[in-house]
Amino acid sequence: MNSSPIGVFDSGIGGLTVVKEIIKVLPNESIIYLGDTARVPYGTRSKEMVTKFALELVKFLLKRKVKALVVACNTISALALDQIKKISPVPVVGVVLPAVAEAVRASKNKRIGVIGTQGTIESKVYEREIKKIDPSIEVFSVGCPLFVPMAEEGLHNHKATQLVARDYLDDILKAKVDTLILGCTHYPLLLETIKETVGPSVTLVDSAKPTAYALKKVLSDNDLFSNNQNPSLEFYVTDAPDRVFQVASRFFGSEPGSKIKKVIL
Amino acid sequence: MNSSPIGVFDSGIGGLTVVKEIIKVLPNESIIYLGDTARVPYGTRSKEMVTKFALELVKFLLKRKVKALVVACNTISALALDQIKKISPVPVVGVVLPAVAEAVRASKNKRIGVIGTQGTIESKVYEREIKKIDPSIEVFSVGCPLFVPMAEEGLHNHKATQLVARDYLDDILKAKVDTLILGCTHYPLLLETIKETVGPSVTLVDSAKPTAYALKKVLSDNDLFSNNQNPSLEFYVTDAPDRVFQVASRFFGSEPGSKIKKVIL
Repeated sequence: MNSSPIGVFDSGIGGLTVVKEIIKVLPNESIIYLGDTARVPYGTRSKEMVTKFALELVKFLLKRKVKALVVACNTISALALDQIKKISPVPVVGVVLPAVAEAVRASKNKRIGVIGTQGTIESKVYEREIKKIDPSIEVFSVGCPLFVPMAEEGLHNHKATQLVARDYLDDILKAKVDTLILGCTHYPLLLETIKETVGPSVTLVDSAKPTAYALKKVLSDNDLFSNNQNPSLEFYVTDAPDRVFQVASRFFGSEPGSKIKKVIL
Repeated sequence: MNSSPIGVFDSGIGGLTVVKEIIKVLPNESIIYLGDTARVPYGTRSKEMVTKFALELVKFLLKRKVKALVVACNTISALALDQIKKISPVPVVGVVLPAVAEAVRASKNKRIGVIGTQGTIESKVYEREIKKIDPSIEVFSVGCPLFVPMAEEGLHNHKATQLVARDYLDDILKAKVDTLILGCTHYPLLLETIKETVGPSVTLVDSAKPTAYALKKVLSDNDLFSNNQNPSLEFYVTDAPDRVFQVASRFFGSEPGSKIKKVIL
């Protein structure tokens, strides 16, 4: 038994969709969340810059004695996971592999689509990881840079979002995929629009739930479970905690229930 | 005569719309441009964070012996101009006052609209500066957070941009303004869509040209003109220079004509 917290981090607050699932799957775990709202979004930044920023976030959480790290951001998972694992003395769970495993299980026709930020898509990490499991699967990827700001602005069912989604997803639809990975922790907020655009025959896979289960397995494998009946939940951001609070509830499904504090990295 | 360069800076590359006008108005001046592409956009960040980032940009340019600074970003001009002026030994020109002067001149019915980032609009700087010149003018402001990513993604005449523009500009149209300030250096890229939305009776004022003329006046007042027949043009960004290059041409009207170099602040 280990009552130290889990450290969850993201470029911003999209990772709260992952926190929500972790709380459901692991209700006895304390969580420290850190979102880099001073430098969000990471999706268009270089690998070098994403890695530099991510390592600063990791150091903050390691100082707080977390027992495991969850990289609740696809761009960081895609571009910096190896570097994070190199410096972390505690287990690290990313969002890419759990979603890949689930998508491979779900696909019948061996044609999988992936949407994400420019950085995630250009890294080709999904393609690589899917083909490691089954090289006969064909992967069709497309960057959807406007989905993050549209989700943050609350344009869930706006006609403009539908039009943009149709443009982005056109090639993926033509490729006749039967499974689509939502490769960004913001995208669950646009679930309805994406579902409507791709139609009922395409299974949507988002990383939040598979990542929570991957974390559960890692805690189990390393004997790190907590039996805390009153686990704590702490939220930190690097800028504008008050502004973040409103948007945070959109991701979290309810008000975070704990003040969001600002930290300087 | 002074052949030192003008330092122009922005949170990203929107400020290139200002550089373009400076080159037209002051063809003998050398220019060093710095865009903080590692941390763009500033529009949703706190005043404190925008000021911290902006002062880092200023220090970089001052080290390069610029003879004047142009803050080619409305968010920085709105939130950090005073701090910048405090530390700068050379004259500083922002984009807010030049646009305000032009808008006040243009308005006949004394009803002026302002659009900008969340940070710019919440600062109320336009309202304050307009009322300093003429307290009887009514100002109607609205933040348009999706315009920056839409302009950067090249959705100039996309139906989605038109829909979003209609939503954003609805209240301003109802207020019957006859003049609209484009309070963000990105917005000239969406000029056609904005023009179409507000109709021909509204005069659009963007900061680029008035700022170039304000700079000319400052150089004149301080005896700082150059007569360089081969002025230099240098572009620096804090991340992803190659990716920036493509988008830069969209703002600049042509390829920047000089390599974009990366710097670490």
